[in-house]
Amino acid sequence: MKLLITGGGGFIGSRLARAVLARGELGGAKLERLVLADQVAPPEALTRDPRVEARIGPLDAQCEALCREGFDGVFHLASAVSGECEADFDLGLRSNLDTTRALLDALRAATGRGAAPAKLVFSSSVAVFGPDPSAPLPDLVGDGTLPAPKTSYGTHKLICEHLIADYSRKGYIDGRSARLMTVTVRPGRPNGAASSFFSGIIREPLAGEEAICPVSAEVSHPLTSVARTVEGLLAVYEASIDAVGGRLGLNLPAVNATVGGMLDALEAVAGKAVRDRVRFVRDENIARIVGNWSRGCTSVRAGKLGLRADADFESIIRQYIADCRESPNGAAALKGLA
Amino acid sequence: MKLLITGGGGFIGSRLARAVLARGELGGAKLERLVLADQVAPPEALTRDPRVEARIGPLDAQCEALCREGFDGVFHLASAVSGECEADFDLGLRSNLDTTRALLDALRAATGRGAAPAKLVFSSSVAVFGPDPSAPLPDLVGDGTLPAPKTSYGTHKLICEHLIADYSRKGYIDGRSARLMTVTVRPGRPNGAASSFFSGIIREPLAGEEAICPVSAEVSHPLTSVARTVEGLLAVYEASIDAVGGRLGLNLPAVNATVGGMLDALEAVAGKAVRDRVRFVRDENIARIVGNWSRGCTSVRAGKLGLRADADFESIIRQYIADCRESPNGAAALKGLA
Repeated sequence: MKLLITGGGGFIGSRLARAVLARGELGGAKLERLVLADQVAPPEALTRDPRVEARIGPLDAQCEALCREGFDGVFHLASAVSGECEADFDLGLRSNLDTTRALLDALRAATGRGAAPAKLVFSSSVAVFGPDPSAPLPDLVGDGTLPAPKTSYGTHKLICEHLIADYSRKGYIDGRSARLMTVTVRPGRPNGAASSFFSGIIREPLAGEEAICPVSAEVSHPLTSVARTVEGLLAVYEASIDAVGGRLGLNLPAVNATVGGMLDALEAVAGKAVRDRVRFVRDENIARIVGNWSRGCTSVRAGKLGLRADADFESIIRQYIADCRESPNGAAALKGLA
Repeated sequence: MKLLITGGGGFIGSRLARAVLARGELGGAKLERLVLADQVAPPEALTRDPRVEARIGPLDAQCEALCREGFDGVFHLASAVSGECEADFDLGLRSNLDTTRALLDALRAATGRGAAPAKLVFSSSVAVFGPDPSAPLPDLVGDGTLPAPKTSYGTHKLICEHLIADYSRKGYIDGRSARLMTVTVRPGRPNGAASSFFSGIIREPLAGEEAICPVSAEVSHPLTSVARTVEGLLAVYEASIDAVGGRLGLNLPAVNATVGGMLDALEAVAGKAVRDRVRFVRDENIARIVGNWSRGCTSVRAGKLGLRADADFESIIRQYIADCRESPNGAAALKGLA
């Protein structure tokens, strides 16, 4: 089978690629070719695999070629993140809406030429939820909570969920949308997402650096490890649509934790000196965005697929530390550890 | 003030235009100019008014000119209907999504040049609701019921609701979305909407013609008169966003009636001979679409704006008959009446 991962050079995309390559099959079909489309190059460890082909460049410009080619399966992860979309409205529309439309139309064109509808998993987001005057946010948002996005990013994700459901209803693709929780601990540098600090307040202290927490310790949020996220994406891909429970977006499992609880976990895993590298300096802009996010999630439909959240936030931190230790240049990421 | 009505040549648009012209003001501001943009020409009775300017042609091609001009207010009613969108997927995307994007970007460009954000009322639809494996449709759908569209038309309406909410959140427009119920009795000929028969089974018998009902008498549906619909659109325009209850789509009031109840009302108003002109000939295609619609609606938010449904379906029929009697060529529409 031929598989496409958009955003395949990114953090989640490259971890997903690694998992699929290691399994060697998807949904019972042998993996023959894996195309990683991204603006950035995927890690060399992936491109060394003869099954992998990297396509570097904007996704919308690639869609015509993707359309000619046709794919059996797609993980559509490429996206401009929340902070970018708030800063540049047109960029968000182009990257998240127009590009998804172009991708869906490319897949639809392949189906029109007689190919079986490509199976597609879309990485939606818990950012589809927000409080609204007509619908206050419940303490934990569920699969069936009324989405009311409070960012352009969340708006785009929700819109794409519904486009994918409609293209699927028409038989052009076989699409499903999994709502990702905030993945932490992301390696590397802060990105443009307003949620970036959820990784930064763990990652920077572990690397021996100071970190700024822009919101209060009481802020609660649904969090997940990258491993659980990849596991969720694969399960949603491989399940029948009946088992997924239809085409509406499905919440992946999360550990619902407060910032204070995250730091307690950091102290338990890495010691007080590490925790003490986090300073609270409120950023009104980020606090306002985060204040509109859900404080936690339930994931009944994902549970029926056998998916489970990480055991607790400590285990998410331990997973990150283990990943760093495995990584060839991961030592620097842990130089704050005693 | 300058007002734009897209779809201003259509049934609801021209009735809305008539109402605004008769009032001479909107939201306390004097109506100076009313632009009716549509693919079809508005009734001559409207264009005779010196305040009215008709712009005939596809809306997307008009957006550049609309952008240069700027408007204080917009009712965005133009849309490809459900049957058209099911028959021609690209037409639906173009007419309902791309055109709305172009309109919103035109209004945003005007705001960017320093104009006050235009107030916009979008005619969404009860078609945003549908049954879903993960969210069965309640007997009556409310403002807060989880939308799960089962047509491309409903998908587009829901997507536009969220785009409009996001453009509003950013301050580019001041938009609100009112979900129209099925407006009946529409005059003229059947249109491409799957709901067309809800008018046809009343209109044709009153004109002395046979009508085919493609679904069973037990089918229940939320119905409204055009007068109540126009009243609702105006109220949603004039209310503060706090009074509207936010930017999420709001259900306009409806009479929830079965097809059998509609025909009982027809008999009560017009006699048994008129009712007997309706024959039941099932159309599987229409029955399948209608089977996915809500059986009725509640409208708590509209109620808080003081909006009420028609008293009953009989009064909807009587309103249609009165409209025909007022219309210069309405006699033919009633020649089936004894």
